[in-house]
Amino acid sequence: MRPLFHPAIEDIRPEGILHALSDPERAMIYAQIAGIGAGGACTAFASMGDRVIPKSSLSQHIKILREAGLIHCERQGVEMRNRSRCGEVDERFPGLLAAILGAYAHLSEKTPES
Amino acid sequence: MRPLFHPAIEDIRPEGILHALSDPERAMIYAQIAGIGAGGACTAFASMGDRVIPKSSLSQHIKILREAGLIHCERQGVEMRNRSRCGEVDERFPGLLAAILGAYAHLSEKTPES
Repeated sequence: MRPLFHPAIEDIRPEGILHALSDPERAMIYAQIAGIGAGGACTAFASMGDRVIPKSSLSQHIKILREAGLIHCERQGVEMRNRSRCGEVDERFPGLLAAILGAYAHLSEKTPES
Repeated sequence: MRPLFHPAIEDIRPEGILHALSDPERAMIYAQIAGIGAGGACTAFASMGDRVIPKSSLSQHIKILREAGLIHCERQGVEMRNRSRCGEVDERFPGLLAAILGAYAHLSEKTPES
């Protein structure tokens, strides 16, 4: 099985992070991963409120987050364990992730009808 | 001449801002507009360091920034005057723009060779 690609911290770029988090569904998956201290299994993110995310979309979202340098993924048997790289990313780009997740959270507070 | 579309502040969404600023060239144009207090003419952003931005690309960048709610554009005779909407956007999503522009600035400081 091919090893999973993870960019080195010095290769992580703002445009990659912004692109990865410019999809609200993907941003929500990232927020969930970042919120779980230990590695979360992919299956934990298979639904967003009432919506079910198809497995193929979920895999694609996880891949984009990983290649942007936002998460670290590790195969454990048949499962994939994901954890946020927010510590190192925040050291590189201080406040960026908090501001982005904050903007999405702020919006969902302001529009409870959506 | 059709009036230019500007989203109302309550319609501005994080995903639109992230998408608009996920292109480094566009982010740099936005940073220049945000840095100029008064309205800057489009022609002021026609070059980035040694690189010349084709007029068609520049128009497209400006349109995407405007539609994301990041800038306000106004025709003045044959010129287009642009000003940043950072005040209202920052009120809606505190710290977001500063963090994004900061990340790009931080990167250019760290990689002087690029």
